[in-house]
Amino acid sequence: MNSNGLSTHLSMETLHGSLTDPAISSMNLLNELIDEYPVAISMAAGRPYEEFFDIRLIHDYLDAYCEHLRRDRKVDEAGVTRALFQYGTTKGIIADIIARNLAEDENIDAAPESVVVTVGAQEAMFLVLRTLRADERDVLLAPAPTYVGLTGAALLTDTPVWPVRSTENGIDPEDLVLQLKRADEQGKRVRACYVTPNFANPTGTSMDLPARHRLLDVAEANGILLLEDNAYGLFGAERLPTLKALDRSGTVVYIGSFAKTGMPGARVGYAVADQRVAGGGLFADQLSKLKGMLTVNTSPIAQAVIAGKLLLNDYSLTKANVRETAIYQRNLHLTLAELDRRLGGLAGVRWNTPTGGFFVTVTVPFVVDDELLAHAARDHGVLFTPMHHFYGGKDGFNQLRLSISLLTPELIQEGVSRLAALITARLG
Amino acid sequence: MNSNGLSTHLSMETLHGSLTDPAISSMNLLNELIDEYPVAISMAAGRPYEEFFDIRLIHDYLDAYCEHLRRDRKVDEAGVTRALFQYGTTKGIIADIIARNLAEDENIDAAPESVVVTVGAQEAMFLVLRTLRADERDVLLAPAPTYVGLTGAALLTDTPVWPVRSTENGIDPEDLVLQLKRADEQGKRVRACYVTPNFANPTGTSMDLPARHRLLDVAEANGILLLEDNAYGLFGAERLPTLKALDRSGTVVYIGSFAKTGMPGARVGYAVADQRVAGGGLFADQLSKLKGMLTVNTSPIAQAVIAGKLLLNDYSLTKANVRETAIYQRNLHLTLAELDRRLGGLAGVRWNTPTGGFFVTVTVPFVVDDELLAHAARDHGVLFTPMHHFYGGKDGFNQLRLSISLLTPELIQEGVSRLAALITARLG
Repeated sequence: MNSNGLSTHLSMETLHGSLTDPAISSMNLLNELIDEYPVAISMAAGRPYEEFFDIRLIHDYLDAYCEHLRRDRKVDEAGVTRALFQYGTTKGIIADIIARNLAEDENIDAAPESVVVTVGAQEAMFLVLRTLRADERDVLLAPAPTYVGLTGAALLTDTPVWPVRSTENGIDPEDLVLQLKRADEQGKRVRACYVTPNFANPTGTSMDLPARHRLLDVAEANGILLLEDNAYGLFGAERLPTLKALDRSGTVVYIGSFAKTGMPGARVGYAVADQRVAGGGLFADQLSKLKGMLTVNTSPIAQAVIAGKLLLNDYSLTKANVRETAIYQRNLHLTLAELDRRLGGLAGVRWNTPTGGFFVTVTVPFVVDDELLAHAARDHGVLFTPMHHFYGGKDGFNQLRLSISLLTPELIQEGVSRLAALITARLG
Repeated sequence: MNSNGLSTHLSMETLHGSLTDPAISSMNLLNELIDEYPVAISMAAGRPYEEFFDIRLIHDYLDAYCEHLRRDRKVDEAGVTRALFQYGTTKGIIADIIARNLAEDENIDAAPESVVVTVGAQEAMFLVLRTLRADERDVLLAPAPTYVGLTGAALLTDTPVWPVRSTENGIDPEDLVLQLKRADEQGKRVRACYVTPNFANPTGTSMDLPARHRLLDVAEANGILLLEDNAYGLFGAERLPTLKALDRSGTVVYIGSFAKTGMPGARVGYAVADQRVAGGGLFADQLSKLKGMLTVNTSPIAQAVIAGKLLLNDYSLTKANVRETAIYQRNLHLTLAELDRRLGGLAGVRWNTPTGGFFVTVTVPFVVDDELLAHAARDHGVLFTPMHHFYGGKDGFNQLRLSISLLTPELIQEGVSRLAALITARLG
């Protein structure tokens, strides 16, 4: 097909630059590589645990939302049907239910009109960056390493991302001060700083309470927004307040995800954007205008599935995920114990000790690149994620990310054992 | 909330330019205006007919897709559940079913790997424009007037849209030749021309077969893509081949929508992009890379709903929409007859006579702006869409669009009667 002249007009050189950016092409190569070794034990995929998935739940959740419309909101049958079948409002039909969930689980006081329901947290990130990126002066700050979805949204909006130092206590507020100063000196306008205070992807690290307060102070004093991503916050032994719960000045735009806590297949997330825009109402209304041009509205059916899960669990995802959280905690502790058992005391090999979430960072005294991953998959039957993918290929070449969310205890023991064999062979 | 200093940093002047573009703000004002008059008869909303909506169908469609996975694709129960609950592949999980539907209904031969399932046709348009817009030389051509969703996607990608003359026979291929020449002279690179050959929104016009062939020839000779939008093609007495069905040179990217033919609430659409990209495989693969950064993947639950509807109707939306098509045809003919009865022979008042779709264009010898619409809503109890909204507020000030899809015969008779009262009063 397409062997004639026209096809030659479509070449990578004439397409949008994001398509050949090293960050994106490297993730694509990574996924292809992982797909090549389906029998290897995957400590690479950050997907939620599957044992409690049950197809009947989808029907139950839909029914629960419809019943809520009938009983609590006095919607007639035609109205219930129309709510699910027809186009819905751009900002979404379950903002009130999400607001109750945020009050219940996170102590966040979100007005429903400040909530924009999106196609996953990914669309929310895109909308925020697209709204904020007005011209070539605008830059975004983000910890290095950072979530690849943030990198992707920035690429789609031609937004440069400047790295901020990240430690075992999360993003470093003092380095943020330095980066803000540097941006100012270079005539750049920092619109926001992206941050994941709870069990970040990829590192697994969290910020302590003083660091959260300090970060809010720095952002507020400098008039920049904080984009808080909280996809993993639920899955910890200890729960610290989110930045949004601490925010008293409209500094934080909260990016919510139901992918890990609700259901990945619904593809529902949201932004809480209660900032006032001079001449433009709520920031949420501006996000909504752009969403109308991007996806029109989030599928009401998908929204109903998530709302139904919330309704059947008293608006609490903490309650809905009691079993899952226990499994993630068990897996995390087991992974750390197995790392200690297999690799403890080995010179130059260390790992961090997150208290929740899906991820552990392992540091080794040799290069971790995609070639090593291919070798690990082929010769040791274990998969992980080289950390350089989260640095856009510019750093992190002696670290790897382990994911613990999808595995059984037996697979974790075997997976760490295989990883240890790889590492000791390299050191040998 | 947010009464402190920070909020002042967010002002419309420092946000992305699309947010204050006249095309978008005018559509927003229009929607607000329409919401203000809920009791008026709306000949403004282009939504599908609701009488056959039935909440049980959602369950039936989900079940049908799951059964298809079990029976036809031999997927085990864990696999079926995972397909709906878990993240899916970025290009979508129902590409093969869409390909069979295109063969069945449109005589289009689409390889499943050239299909990218999207969050409605709107995301497909965004992805195509984002992929094609590499630098400031790139422009898009589109008929004037044009669908507002196309204007929106262009604004989000900073893509200038150059108008091409449109007649009762759709976009004018000879004016396309002129515009291509003009673009070349100005150092611009035309990447594509957007076109809706069947019952276009907003005009209701269609292209005849010679015009389709001529358009394909012009595009192929000039090495530009045609973006074919076919949201309404099913709803006509006569069915002409789509551009994609006639395409032998990979000139056409086909944008598919299930909003009118499947279910708006699923928010599922797709692109067929079988072009080869030098150094990058299929064009569909490039769209998919960007989709991964925008919405990750289209909700598998929403995809399953659409797939189920196709499976229960032998892959044919023509078959699935027999009753709806009859109603749209009845409504269209009744609207035209009522216009004739109420306004026939009135000097300067005329309308076109589409043979399918949702829309009729009425031309009057006075200004049709939002002020007139407010007057019509308040004093005559009827709503329509001023055509200038589809020209980005730059033209069309003596035309209006009537939508016929959502009404009963009684409401059409009363609506046209009220419209006639407004028009005759104006001509007074």
